[in-house]
Amino acid sequence: MNNSAIGVFDSGVGGLTCVKELRRLLPNENIVYLGDTARVPYGTRSKETIARYTKEDMEFLRSHDVKMILVACGTASSVIMSDPEFRDHSTGPAYSGVVLPAAHAACAATRNNKIGVIATGATIKSGSYGKVIRSINHNMRVVGKACPMFVPLVENGYTDKDCPPTRYFAEEYLECMKQEGVDTLILGCTHYPHLAELISDIMGSGVTLISSSAELAKLALKDLTFADELSDRQEPGSLELYCTDSTELFSENVERFLGSGINAKIEKCSLKIKS
Amino acid sequence: MNNSAIGVFDSGVGGLTCVKELRRLLPNENIVYLGDTARVPYGTRSKETIARYTKEDMEFLRSHDVKMILVACGTASSVIMSDPEFRDHSTGPAYSGVVLPAAHAACAATRNNKIGVIATGATIKSGSYGKVIRSINHNMRVVGKACPMFVPLVENGYTDKDCPPTRYFAEEYLECMKQEGVDTLILGCTHYPHLAELISDIMGSGVTLISSSAELAKLALKDLTFADELSDRQEPGSLELYCTDSTELFSENVERFLGSGINAKIEKCSLKIKS
Repeated sequence: MNNSAIGVFDSGVGGLTCVKELRRLLPNENIVYLGDTARVPYGTRSKETIARYTKEDMEFLRSHDVKMILVACGTASSVIMSDPEFRDHSTGPAYSGVVLPAAHAACAATRNNKIGVIATGATIKSGSYGKVIRSINHNMRVVGKACPMFVPLVENGYTDKDCPPTRYFAEEYLECMKQEGVDTLILGCTHYPHLAELISDIMGSGVTLISSSAELAKLALKDLTFADELSDRQEPGSLELYCTDSTELFSENVERFLGSGINAKIEKCSLKIKS
Repeated sequence: MNNSAIGVFDSGVGGLTCVKELRRLLPNENIVYLGDTARVPYGTRSKETIARYTKEDMEFLRSHDVKMILVACGTASSVIMSDPEFRDHSTGPAYSGVVLPAAHAACAATRNNKIGVIATGATIKSGSYGKVIRSINHNMRVVGKACPMFVPLVENGYTDKDCPPTRYFAEEYLECMKQEGVDTLILGCTHYPHLAELISDIMGSGVTLISSSAELAKLALKDLTFADELSDRQEPGSLELYCTDSTELFSENVERFLGSGINAKIEKCSLKIKS
């Protein structure tokens, strides 16, 4: 039993889709969330810069005495997988990213062994999903596609399945997935579940969508259960949300992602910057 | 006479539209440019964060012994106008932003005293253009409109006037300008000149477009001439371009903004971060 909080971070507000799922699966756990809104987005930056930002985000969560860290950002999850500096799990709480649980879910779901991955430029460039999927089953065919316009569209609220520009970009990005005949598609960026209805409409009902943020929440439940580190709290867990830019802009998005009327502390914080 | 370089900065690559104009007007001047590509965009952030980033950018240029600083970012230019910390011009080289020269050019161009301003959310929220324009002529009517999708569209190369999603957003954003009957429209973000053809197509030939980056370059020429600080160099000036994220991503955009085959030094730099 461990009553410390679960730490979650993302470059911005996309990771709140993971928080939503966590609160459904683990309603009695305390959650501390960090959105690095002063430096969002990560997905268009270099791997060195993403690794530096990720280290600073993790250090912030560690200073809040969390029992585990969930990297609810597809870009950060992908970059740290190939960075030796992140291999040492011996100091501080364990961390998990979205790539492994989403890859496992996709391998379990596919019937024709053709899996598509849509994500940010940095995630696709890292090849993270392909490496993990092929390590699970080397017969899998993996098709990756960077979707650079999806994050700004979601951040600005253009998520309706009939919104013409969003549909234009989605059709452009998903064309290769239809041509390759994938039957399973990983939403490799935690912003993308907001476009699930549109993506499903374009891909058709025969294609299974895997939400990387939901799979990460499921992994947290599994890991805490296995390690006997679930909280024994009887009342609903608390929710602390931190952002690195103003809370005004952040709060609007929190409401959009988690719904209005949530009982959460929202605060601006400073990170220890290593320049 | 002063042979020191002109310092120019922007959140990213938008300010290169000002550099392009500077090199046309002042071909013998050395230019040092900083694009804060590790933290772009600025226009969606709070004024406190934008002010902090702007201070760090200016400090970097000062350390390069520049004779003047051009704030080739509409967002930074707008935020520092109302920040008392930026009022002291006595230390270091003088700086100029895009707001004043663009506002003066618009007031000179309008015939019906109705001026439109399109820019980032932070710029529109600051009310910077309206304040300056009404201080020049209090009879002016100013219509402002935030265009949050324009920067990602430009950064991702969707600038063609017939590109359906770009046209969709431009028509949405410019609708109020047409309804108000503005005859002059300020492109208040240095990314927007890349959409000039499309914007002009929607607004019609009767509407004058004011490029804030071109007006800033003209102001630099005027100020240096007036202060007798033009270079007496006979050969073409040098161009040093710095960015805070990888040069790989930056170089692609430099080529797109300044054309291929430019003779420039491109380097990654670190800023002194005040966390």
